[in-house]
Amino acid sequence: MSSVTITPALLQSVRDAVGEVRSAAPLVQCVTNSVVVNFTANALLAIGASPAMVDIPEESGVFASVADAVLINLGTPNAEQRAACVEAVTAARAGGTPWVLDPVAVGVLPVRTALAHRLLDHRPSIVRGNPSEILALAGAGAGGRGVDSADGVDDALEGALMLARSTGAVIAVSGAVDLITDGERVVRIANGDPLLTRITGGGCALGAVLAAFAGAHPDRFEASVAAVAAYTVAAELAARGADGPGSFAVGFLDALASLDGATVAERIVLS
Amino acid sequence: MSSVTITPALLQSVRDAVGEVRSAAPLVQCVTNSVVVNFTANALLAIGASPAMVDIPEESGVFASVADAVLINLGTPNAEQRAACVEAVTAARAGGTPWVLDPVAVGVLPVRTALAHRLLDHRPSIVRGNPSEILALAGAGAGGRGVDSADGVDDALEGALMLARSTGAVIAVSGAVDLITDGERVVRIANGDPLLTRITGGGCALGAVLAAFAGAHPDRFEASVAAVAAYTVAAELAARGADGPGSFAVGFLDALASLDGATVAERIVLS
Amino acid sequence: MSSVTITPALLQSVRDAVGEVRSAAPLVQCVTNSVVVNFTANALLAIGASPAMVDIPEESGVFASVADAVLINLGTPNAEQRAACVEAVTAARAGGTPWVLDPVAVGVLPVRTALAHRLLDHRPSIVRGNPSEILALAGAGAGGRGVDSADGVDDALEGALMLARSTGAVIAVSGAVDLITDGERVVRIANGDPLLTRITGGGCALGAVLAAFAGAHPDRFEASVAAVAAYTVAAELAARGADGPGSFAVGFLDALASLDGATVAERIVLS
Repeated sequence: MSSVTITPALLQSVRDAVGEVRSAAPLVQCVTNSVVVNFTANALLAIGASPAMVDIPEESGVFASVADAVLINLGTPNAEQRAACVEAVTAARAGGTPWVLDPVAVGVLPVRTALAHRLLDHRPSIVRGNPSEILALAGAGAGGRGVDSADGVDDALEGALMLARSTGAVIAVSGAVDLITDGERVVRIANGDPLLTRITGGGCALGAVLAAFAGAHPDRFEASVAAVAAYTVAAELAARGADGPGSFAVGFLDALASLDGATVAERIVLS
Repeated sequence: MSSVTITPALLQSVRDAVGEVRSAAPLVQCVTNSVVVNFTANALLAIGASPAMVDIPEESGVFASVADAVLINLGTPNAEQRAACVEAVTAARAGGTPWVLDPVAVGVLPVRTALAHRLLDHRPSIVRGNPSEILALAGAGAGGRGVDSADGVDDALEGALMLARSTGAVIAVSGAVDLITDGERVVRIANGDPLLTRITGGGCALGAVLAAFAGAHPDRFEASVAAVAAYTVAAELAARGADGPGSFAVGFLDALASLDGATVAERIVLS
Repeated sequence: MSSVTITPALLQSVRDAVGEVRSAAPLVQCVTNSVVVNFTANALLAIGASPAMVDIPEESGVFASVADAVLINLGTPNAEQRAACVEAVTAARAGGTPWVLDPVAVGVLPVRTALAHRLLDHRPSIVRGNPSEILALAGAGAGGRGVDSADGVDDALEGALMLARSTGAVIAVSGAVDLITDGERVVRIANGDPLLTRITGGGCALGAVLAAFAGAHPDRFEASVAAVAAYTVAAELAARGADGPGSFAVGFLDALASLDGATVAERIVLS
């Protein structure tokens, strides 16, 4: 199994990338689902990015050509959003703008599954999903139970490697341990907190934060490792003061807003 | 007026149902309005259910056939959601899956009123509404003022009984006192807090929690009593620590997440 | 440059208007974007208004004819919302009901820009935007960077005066200092807190609060000054107890809910 010990250079890039997001304030366009759109915009603002939820035809392509990064999340893909997705990724690809695909519940539901496969042809920079979603996209699984995964992160390793190699994307698999691969290197990050799975958008907002980091830090693998580390460290910090999922969500936005790269680099746990 | 003293068996079912939701983690599909969709998903997660907001045509029927319960809320019924509603309830009914109708602002607005009457033909398991909405559905009132009720809970008793008998649904009427009837039995629950009316989604998320309980506990009348009791007891607990509606909403999710059946059974106030 | 020292009469109207909103509980219809719709409804409830997010064709005109005020926010203007906007403002104008236009990202994106200009013909009572949006509407600027302004409030003064005179609307320009003009009088309010720009909906919910005040207080200029003052004073109060943007958003709703006119009149800072 391919794997890497995290290198000092990679650790330094994690430390740097958090500050790069804050100084660049990347403009992140999101075509995302109605459930998490507010939380996603607030997470982006907290980490220092500038969110813009431009998701209708005839505007999404225009905007993607000026955005620093684009998130495509397929959680509630109505007809206008589906057209807007294709417009946005076409413009992103044409402009060399990084874009993230979050294929929510792919494999279970037909409309989004067809769209996700079509979008893969536009070569996403990063794909984020739970193990079942990654396996379904890789053609190696039947999908999960709604938005929940029926598989563990390591069950998805081979699928993630295949998907990375066939698409050229960095694959970020979310779970109790997060796994990030570019098809050669594999990093596992063991930060985070179970409360992140007890609020809606815990995974979806990470997709947007991945886009923010990719919009500020050119190396997509480093950006992905840094984004996952920052996000899950913020979750740990928030969990310490939380009385439940409601106060956790509030504290998580506060923690993202005050996070710095040194804290992330100190607290990152690789496994 | 038909009414019942709550029986020891009903009280035991209230105590049990909270734990049954947590252990079954019912998959609750929601076709709901854009205003409350995030809060609704978070309330479902907090009570232990697994929310899935699948609300587009060609997916909602597929999903309803695997879901444990379905919520149909007519708060912002765009054209795709209207088609998705019909798909979902058709599949739910075919599969014997319980489904809840929340007819927001029915009687006031034409598109949703026509849809609500059409959906009634698909025999909802539970209908939740404020007094004006229940009266409008029963053909006995003119509707309220927007999403607010112009009538009191007891004004809606006769309408609720009629609606229960004509549709076979359990009717849950929301107000300072909540009223639940299956057309024969009537239970009034006097828990809750006025802050629940000062946040958006205070009623709508209850519709989803009713679906979660119906998905985990087969008797729909018991499930409805337990859901209303759990929800309104959580509101009381949250209100004690709240400085206003913002902190109340946060504390309410925390309270739902830590609630157990014994607490609900101890604190339930019948009237 | 036209400008006014705030008069004792204007200050008294600020003090009174907060209580008028609470006692009238104006029914405020919102056609607004998916990102902020929950926060907007909660802000309206907190200030004492009654929100109703009726935003589909064949319902929005019906509702606007009974609402006390209407907000049109162009943040995510899908096709149904665009038709609903035209319906709503037509009915509002016919009934003499005040309506607020919030032209999010106008000047940058084509669909909403065309719609905003069409809506101006229906004579909004109040237009709220950031400097770039106001300049774009006035035909004097190229728009901002997504939802962010590329211009300062005072850069927009001439454009705001022009727009007020050509449309008859009160113009509220949002920034570190807020500027309100009816084309003759100009008031600058220096309350608020930078955290208001670190949560999504910080500007959009102000559009809704402007509608609430216009629905309760007949003089639109006074209503606008009072709304901006109340909103930004609540932000200051909330910022004192906040640990970051998450807790600020929660505290802001609590502060809006407990605000009274005397506090607003005491704390208002004109510049």
